[in-house]
Amino acid sequence: MWLKETLYDDLRIALRGELVYKKKSPHQDLRVYQSASFGRVLLLDGAIQTTERDEFIYHEMLTHPLLLSVPRPEKVLLIGAGDGGILREVLKHPVKKAVLVEIDREVISLSEKYLSSICGGAFSHPKTEIVIEDGARFLTGTQDKFDVVIVDSPDPVGVAKSLFTPSFYKNIYRVLSSRGMMIRQTGSTFLQKKDMKKHHHTLSKVFPVVTVQLTAIPTYVGGFFSCMIGSKKIDPRTIRKTVLEKRYKSRGLRTQYYNTDMHHASMVMPNYVREEIQ
Amino acid sequence: MWLKETLYDDLRIALRGELVYKKKSPHQDLRVYQSASFGRVLLLDGAIQTTERDEFIYHEMLTHPLLLSVPRPEKVLLIGAGDGGILREVLKHPVKKAVLVEIDREVISLSEKYLSSICGGAFSHPKTEIVIEDGARFLTGTQDKFDVVIVDSPDPVGVAKSLFTPSFYKNIYRVLSSRGMMIRQTGSTFLQKKDMKKHHHTLSKVFPVVTVQLTAIPTYVGGFFSCMIGSKKIDPRTIRKTVLEKRYKSRGLRTQYYNTDMHHASMVMPNYVREEIQ
Repeated sequence: MWLKETLYDDLRIALRGELVYKKKSPHQDLRVYQSASFGRVLLLDGAIQTTERDEFIYHEMLTHPLLLSVPRPEKVLLIGAGDGGILREVLKHPVKKAVLVEIDREVISLSEKYLSSICGGAFSHPKTEIVIEDGARFLTGTQDKFDVVIVDSPDPVGVAKSLFTPSFYKNIYRVLSSRGMMIRQTGSTFLQKKDMKKHHHTLSKVFPVVTVQLTAIPTYVGGFFSCMIGSKKIDPRTIRKTVLEKRYKSRGLRTQYYNTDMHHASMVMPNYVREEIQ
Repeated sequence: MWLKETLYDDLRIALRGELVYKKKSPHQDLRVYQSASFGRVLLLDGAIQTTERDEFIYHEMLTHPLLLSVPRPEKVLLIGAGDGGILREVLKHPVKKAVLVEIDREVISLSEKYLSSICGGAFSHPKTEIVIEDGARFLTGTQDKFDVVIVDSPDPVGVAKSLFTPSFYKNIYRVLSSRGMMIRQTGSTFLQKKDMKKHHHTLSKVFPVVTVQLTAIPTYVGGFFSCMIGSKKIDPRTIRKTVLEKRYKSRGLRTQYYNTDMHHASMVMPNYVREEIQ
């Protein structure tokens, strides 16, 4: 049997595997497959979100570049991120609190049951606080301040629509501490060029420092996969390797993708991406 | 209609498109599709070789890092490369001669007819010399010397098998000038890990300098796509940006992916690749 992703009209990726879980929540269609090459695979509304084999790339790269750029990150806000992978990476740092705001309770439940290799015990960690709420609404209500905000959502269709508006970014700016930074995925640099450009434009109106970060993720087809980093002060491109290396070691990190050379290399863009966001 | 790639057992990529050319040559099964998102697509024995939309990534990155690292490259040898894309990029440099050794005459013929946006007039350029022969056999026979050797072949199955043996690499070493360098693709860092490791091992026995170069190519699924560079003296990792920039400008290059920052960034490896080739 083949699991077929239906994210794009003209391009499909398919993995050999068996369906092990299927549910329609009030928010979206949730599926988990057991695949031959990638282990368990989570799909939301037909789009691959994560797989056991390659999840480390996305989860590490949405976490460590920011948590190592901020000298002493204490409070971290995660919006979406209901599979627990980013939470697991955040908790490798000596933070005081990680607040995870997920709109769909079912994502957390299925992850605890079917994706335990991804979330581990992160949801029940004493530093974790889970809020079941729309991320955009949470942001307008909270008076808390955070050193890092990580937005881990599907593409701007369906349930995640409210997480892509200018006012969403403005509210993130508001809840960030004075040296705070945010990151979010903005899709394939090749197949979702227009989205990437739009996000860069919107973010640049809100944050004085905006950087594109690129990774190569097997189950996200479309060449380089982009993330946008918005920052109030700190530029993650100019932090010296020695500083990052010292923090990486003192925090006892172990990573499968991230290293302090990749930190800088991931922020270099090929010409076709440069031209798009200029 | 969907064009389905059959390179891997458990993972498929499919593009919406129409078959426009199909032939069985004595060497392989050749197909050209007209796809909705990627323009014309060339498949050899079921594996996607190149597409009009993203070919620039592979063709630039197999060419410019080497031709800019060697101060004055005069003679370049291309093994395989029958779609003409690399030849086109090589001829952007002030070389004296580019010899293209392709085993299958049909690849060149179909490219001239169906992939003219890729090969342009490269095959009939006065500096081009085309030899229809097995690349491994050509190497054992030639007494010529080359500054750069670029191997552009399918994976080590079928027709390209002879291009992956230790003696093949030894012969490349023999035909290279004293400051010469070679490059070849070695597949997905994720799905073809073992192949990559093997090539790195074999190359390291022949060349004093061996570097992995990584690119992200939409139609080559599997995360970072790897190339191996083998060099007699010059280390492409340590050439300064200012030197590369000067050569890039004085040669009047224009590129869509390569730039002198990507030159160095493409030679940085995530931990999972580092561990594989150590």
